[in-house]
Amino acid sequence: MNRAPRQMKLGAFLMATGHHVAAWRHPDVPADAGLSFAHYKHLAKVAEAAKFDALFIADSVAAATGDGANRMARSDHFEPLTLVSALSAVTERIGLIVTATTSYNEPYHIARKFASLDHLSGGRAGWNLVTSDAAAEALNFGRDEHIDHAQRYRRAREFHQVVTGLWDSWQDDAFIRDKASGQYYDPSRLHVLDHKGEHFQVKGPLNVARSPQGQPVVVQAGSSEAGRRLAAQTAEVVFTAQASLSAAQAFYRDLKSRAGAFHRDPDDLKIMPGMFVVVGDTEAQAQEKFESFQDLVQPEVGVALLERMLGNFDLSGYPLDQPLPELPLTQSGQQSRQALLTQLSRNEQLTLAQLGRRIAGGRGHFSVIGTATQIADHWQEWFEQGAADGFNVLVPHLPGGLEDVANKVIPELQRRGLFRQDYSGTTLREHLGLKRPANRLFPVTER
Amino acid sequence: MNRAPRQMKLGAFLMATGHHVAAWRHPDVPADAGLSFAHYKHLAKVAEAAKFDALFIADSVAAATGDGANRMARSDHFEPLTLVSALSAVTERIGLIVTATTSYNEPYHIARKFASLDHLSGGRAGWNLVTSDAAAEALNFGRDEHIDHAQRYRRAREFHQVVTGLWDSWQDDAFIRDKASGQYYDPSRLHVLDHKGEHFQVKGPLNVARSPQGQPVVVQAGSSEAGRRLAAQTAEVVFTAQASLSAAQAFYRDLKSRAGAFHRDPDDLKIMPGMFVVVGDTEAQAQEKFESFQDLVQPEVGVALLERMLGNFDLSGYPLDQPLPELPLTQSGQQSRQALLTQLSRNEQLTLAQLGRRIAGGRGHFSVIGTATQIADHWQEWFEQGAADGFNVLVPHLPGGLEDVANKVIPELQRRGLFRQDYSGTTLREHLGLKRPANRLFPVTER
Repeated sequence: MNRAPRQMKLGAFLMATGHHVAAWRHPDVPADAGLSFAHYKHLAKVAEAAKFDALFIADSVAAATGDGANRMARSDHFEPLTLVSALSAVTERIGLIVTATTSYNEPYHIARKFASLDHLSGGRAGWNLVTSDAAAEALNFGRDEHIDHAQRYRRAREFHQVVTGLWDSWQDDAFIRDKASGQYYDPSRLHVLDHKGEHFQVKGPLNVARSPQGQPVVVQAGSSEAGRRLAAQTAEVVFTAQASLSAAQAFYRDLKSRAGAFHRDPDDLKIMPGMFVVVGDTEAQAQEKFESFQDLVQPEVGVALLERMLGNFDLSGYPLDQPLPELPLTQSGQQSRQALLTQLSRNEQLTLAQLGRRIAGGRGHFSVIGTATQIADHWQEWFEQGAADGFNVLVPHLPGGLEDVANKVIPELQRRGLFRQDYSGTTLREHLGLKRPANRLFPVTER
Repeated sequence: MNRAPRQMKLGAFLMATGHHVAAWRHPDVPADAGLSFAHYKHLAKVAEAAKFDALFIADSVAAATGDGANRMARSDHFEPLTLVSALSAVTERIGLIVTATTSYNEPYHIARKFASLDHLSGGRAGWNLVTSDAAAEALNFGRDEHIDHAQRYRRAREFHQVVTGLWDSWQDDAFIRDKASGQYYDPSRLHVLDHKGEHFQVKGPLNVARSPQGQPVVVQAGSSEAGRRLAAQTAEVVFTAQASLSAAQAFYRDLKSRAGAFHRDPDDLKIMPGMFVVVGDTEAQAQEKFESFQDLVQPEVGVALLERMLGNFDLSGYPLDQPLPELPLTQSGQQSRQALLTQLSRNEQLTLAQLGRRIAGGRGHFSVIGTATQIADHWQEWFEQGAADGFNVLVPHLPGGLEDVANKVIPELQRRGLFRQDYSGTTLREHLGLKRPANRLFPVTER
């Protein structure tokens, strides 16, 4: 047991104008936020001043252009690796977690870019390892349709092996750089991976020294059976959308127990459900604020968003004033999201149009619309009742929503001793309480 | 004819500890420069204060680990796109040109990252489009050997078509972001590329708005027949290694004339030979400075460097005290470099060991070791005698060599009216005098 009181981990899930689909139309929001570096720099500084563990940026390797897309601020945004590399130069402590898909990338490029980011940032890089489910992505990479679900996860597992293997190409002390003897590195401290697998053949070594964190932090968000298995084996942080405390507790227990079954210390796997919050000085004011975004949702946008959450499933044949129909379960759709939406639709007796509007804000994540005290109460309950090690925080609009969390919710958590007053370390691993991994290819005992 | 006097363009070719292979051993040089962001930040600021058009960073997607590599500072360095993204946040005006290979990348990723960098930097991105010739690179990307020369160039040509097509996915004014009507983009101003070619099938559109420069600047460095043909068709800047004024003049005439044959304005193609310079207050002092680096060259390093320039050609069977032998010409070797080295070896009657030491500094680029006046004389001659539109400047060591150029050579060029006193524009295209390209998929006249 740790002597220090357990404190929650917090990620700031940044998304251009915010997570509410209509946020860009709000007078307080810069509509061109997706390609404004000044905007992201401000967000990063706000999150860092509030002592967030990390900021997080999701990704897709395709432009949203389907039905309703021209009414959403989702089609033009920075590429995340270039964006957080730039942010690394204007921040000091906050972790930088970005998404890169294993489905349409090469492991050498990914290993290299995240190792480079870890060096640039002094040990603050995190990789959100995902598989791609959108057909639109496949079409940008020489395929007629996306890779099937099982195959994607086998590829992801091997991709992770190659990337982490490449990160261990060099012993921590391989680069001697001894001017007198003229030896720049010690060849005996170099490991050539020489991976030959089902999907990849990668010789190595990486052309980047082992990075400050040893390895960037590996994050995952898959909640399907295959996603959970992969996360239990390989993830250090799991982001997840859970609609209720009990569902979150079940997920938490399941994943920690799976990690144990793989002989991992469950504490080496941090579970951080998404929390969508709208902060007000009173509950009524928070609700009013939320409604000001809901009022801006265009009907076609809600349905389009549903289609997108279902893996670009075409809902055009389904009536808007009827409940969400039984959907044909495809291997390639986002299975866990589909189940979540079906449940939500039934529990709250929503029509398709209402469901679209309903998810316009939190997109399936647990929502708290209320005062800082109410939000802190919910987070504390989840944190103390075995549902979470921390939270990935989503706000309806940016920068305002993040400023509300920073100025109102974080101080409340700090008063309760649930969140740090200041950073105690410099790396993302230190913030998260994750060990710096030893080089598996060079056990220290063998030297 | 332009009224304004023609001025030369200057690129700062940055390479960790410098271009001299033994620079890292010198007391003035930080041996860990390859992974020091503070180092690169300083270099970028020095180059920007000196009004360089751009900084330039080369790349390889493999670690140098062959013979002698452990005695060179070449095996651990930042990945260039992440590095210059970070540099974009701490600079204002200087162009940011980085290399990305067409041989082992996907065009969607490359189009997207450079467009993102162009937005991050306010229009300062340049892409050095190369093909990969090192076998070590192939082995990191699922291949047993590299792609043959002709095939690489066909792939590069198509890669360029796809990338530039994706850059034109959106009309400049496609993103209306009209809060009142709820229209974020105008679908009629979106173009779906739908490319289907020999090597690539890419639907598009890009998920980044058209960038500040319209398109990032396309740079190339190939000097072989296929390389020249590709450059004449597609490059806006050409970097080249030329060993003499007459060779540079012939190259310049050839490339400008080829561009004309493709119905391009030869002024839209800027030719910038590499210039390796060692600056001293006297010629003797410059020579002494150069020798202080030469004295640090380890014998095995010179030969290893030759092997690398020849595309990882194994020279271990060749005696060190004999001239460079007739080499078997391979399709896959760096043909133009091989011819250059053979010529150098014969002209100066060098043994293999001497040739290795000889190229340790400038690596085949024209070298001037002397005073600022002497260097300016050479550059002026090349610039005025039809050999160059400007230069890509290589220095033996960093940051010292760049500081010497900034403090001594640039002021001399400015006194002569050959180089700008200050930036007159904000984008790399404006610095270079290159037009902002119209969107070829949306001719303005059709609107």
